[in-house]
Amino acid sequence: MTPPFQLLAATAAGGRRGRLSLPHQTVETPVFMPVGTQGAVKTVPPDTLKALGAEILLRNTYPLYPRPGHESIHRMGGLHRFMSWPRAILTDSGGFQVFSLSSLRKVTEDGVQFRSHLDGSSHFFTPEHSIDVQIALGADVIMAFDECTEYPADHGRAQESLRLTMAWARRSLAHFRAHRHEVPWRNMVQHEPGVPNPKRENSCLGRETSEAQTQLLFGIVQGGMYPDLRRQCAEQIVDMDFNGYAIGGLSVGEPRELTFDIISEVLPLLPKDKPRYVMGVGYPDEIEQYSRLGVDMMDCVLPTRAARHALLFTSEGRLNIKNKQFAEDQSPPDPACSCPVCRRYSRAYLRHLMQAGEPLSATLNSIHNLALYLGVMQRLRNSLDPFPDEGKTGF
Amino acid sequence: MTPPFQLLAATAAGGRRGRLSLPHQTVETPVFMPVGTQGAVKTVPPDTLKALGAEILLRNTYPLYPRPGHESIHRMGGLHRFMSWPRAILTDSGGFQVFSLSSLRKVTEDGVQFRSHLDGSSHFFTPEHSIDVQIALGADVIMAFDECTEYPADHGRAQESLRLTMAWARRSLAHFRAHRHEVPWRNMVQHEPGVPNPKRENSCLGRETSEAQTQLLFGIVQGGMYPDLRRQCAEQIVDMDFNGYAIGGLSVGEPRELTFDIISEVLPLLPKDKPRYVMGVGYPDEIEQYSRLGVDMMDCVLPTRAARHALLFTSEGRLNIKNKQFAEDQSPPDPACSCPVCRRYSRAYLRHLMQAGEPLSATLNSIHNLALYLGVMQRLRNSLDPFPDEGKTGF
Repeated sequence: MTPPFQLLAATAAGGRRGRLSLPHQTVETPVFMPVGTQGAVKTVPPDTLKALGAEILLRNTYPLYPRPGHESIHRMGGLHRFMSWPRAILTDSGGFQVFSLSSLRKVTEDGVQFRSHLDGSSHFFTPEHSIDVQIALGADVIMAFDECTEYPADHGRAQESLRLTMAWARRSLAHFRAHRHEVPWRNMVQHEPGVPNPKRENSCLGRETSEAQTQLLFGIVQGGMYPDLRRQCAEQIVDMDFNGYAIGGLSVGEPRELTFDIISEVLPLLPKDKPRYVMGVGYPDEIEQYSRLGVDMMDCVLPTRAARHALLFTSEGRLNIKNKQFAEDQSPPDPACSCPVCRRYSRAYLRHLMQAGEPLSATLNSIHNLALYLGVMQRLRNSLDPFPDEGKTGF
Repeated sequence: MTPPFQLLAATAAGGRRGRLSLPHQTVETPVFMPVGTQGAVKTVPPDTLKALGAEILLRNTYPLYPRPGHESIHRMGGLHRFMSWPRAILTDSGGFQVFSLSSLRKVTEDGVQFRSHLDGSSHFFTPEHSIDVQIALGADVIMAFDECTEYPADHGRAQESLRLTMAWARRSLAHFRAHRHEVPWRNMVQHEPGVPNPKRENSCLGRETSEAQTQLLFGIVQGGMYPDLRRQCAEQIVDMDFNGYAIGGLSVGEPRELTFDIISEVLPLLPKDKPRYVMGVGYPDEIEQYSRLGVDMMDCVLPTRAARHALLFTSEGRLNIKNKQFAEDQSPPDPACSCPVCRRYSRAYLRHLMQAGEPLSATLNSIHNLALYLGVMQRLRNSLDPFPDEGKTGF
């Protein structure tokens, strides 16, 4: 069986050009993953994301857990089919959002007790439950249940949090190995007879999956901002033999230099033949910088969240489209960009939509920002690639 | 000079298949016009509207008047260029929205004094000012300034309102004849040198306009629900010789049978060789019914407004996508529809987006509803056409 990750080229500085073969999509790395919370990348239709060239999305698990519910999504054939997204998906463990969204949470050795932010109902999330939910959703890559250490945290607190994360990682892995065959799309074939509308595109099973194609489970390196704890964590987690490794607990309020230092410390500790994922970063220049260090995967809500607040990323820097100076500016948001928004609409029109409170504003701004992020990664892959492949994007 | 409206065929019942040659688009009639208020059809990008086959949009004048302002849009080359919509546009006079949105309005013989709903500032709208604004925006079809008679209104009130509307129609026409050369796109050519981004699509001037191509001005028949007043109004307004005629003051709360009766009364009074437009209607079965009577143009916010409130129109009737019965329904919204939404997404997914409060919900629902309306009109045109032309829609 071919390993899912192939390293195609590497630079002296550590930058890697790779290829990750997932059940629904072969993903060219380094890759940026747009983020969807409630089962949609905010304001952007899945088919638009596909046209922009996105090969993998991150979906937050926690908001899907109460509504529509992972069991319901499992009955419908999994998340790909549910949201008509035929390419790869990565789900987080739900842990981070349990910590950040819920009230009255109580962490014990066994898991997290919390009250739902939606209806106040009480729930208990354990590593086993997180894995069950993620298997039911059926993403291509799923994550071990961890505790994201807050910032700042003293050495003792970070060490205790790390200990819990390691225990939960072992339990996540054991539960995954025992239940991974329960994934909804296992052995499903394309265009199965049960699909009601034969005209429907994207039956969401890009190819026939086989016994060999299961979800991948990634472990997460925590340890706060302490190099010794990060090293200790990396060694333990690599020993457990996950399919890939994430560096978590970053972008939690620490200065940017510290983020860079921790990533630089941890990367050399991770095996070269497995994908490396830094969670929750960053600005366009950061995702480029981290990729050049050897990070293969990244995700961030920034391009879509900024878009909803009038902030556009361009090849010439950031631009607040609400500014009065754009009131009659008929140039495109980014003259160097050839995304569907820059090809058609002017700064003046985008400013007007924002001023008028039109929801279309968020949609068009988000499409541009995502196109810019995906474009940064495409150019980066080409620069890391001994045999660049052009024209992967849909425009 | 060829007259802008060509009658291609007519049925015994009065239904007409026609063609309206406008500066930016030849529009096949009968036609339904999607409505944009703030310079955007809510939640739907202009390029999606084009792909759906829309040939003409209605833009409300009043919301564009304070923000970004008609003078600003004129400087930018007009509304088509501003919103990157290369096809036809019709603007209303602003009158209806002045009446419905502003507070402290005072109607005099000269015009309407009112306070802005945005900032409370005081404005005076006259027929001349409405025409100035509409020429500056540069729509293909513009409307005379009228008073939309409220419902119910007694005969005396409807008669007085009608008298005012006739006086304002004369003034609108005189002002238009004196100023129509001031339209922003007159004599502009495609791909003019001033366009900053040569890559930009839709430079919004589908073809070179010539001296012969100016805006069309339509007069409006009012008269409340009184056949004698409607007749009196139609005779006077036809005498003034507008480029087309609208039936206004309907869909203001009257029973549907009355709407039908008034349309049936007025249509025979209008000249056969000019387009006939019923403002602000209706449900899919209504737009079909009125077209079969001989109405050539209609507009309504219903498809997009209903979409934002979970109501989908389908070939099998209306469907409230919020209903629990759709929670795991993997069939498309309308199995008979081949729009981009029905080709890709399920009822379960659309229900989830609505339940989760995702703004994408409004976008996808609106695209389907507009596709359904445009599809109804396409099939209707084919049924009225001795030589049906197929495949006008982009999907």
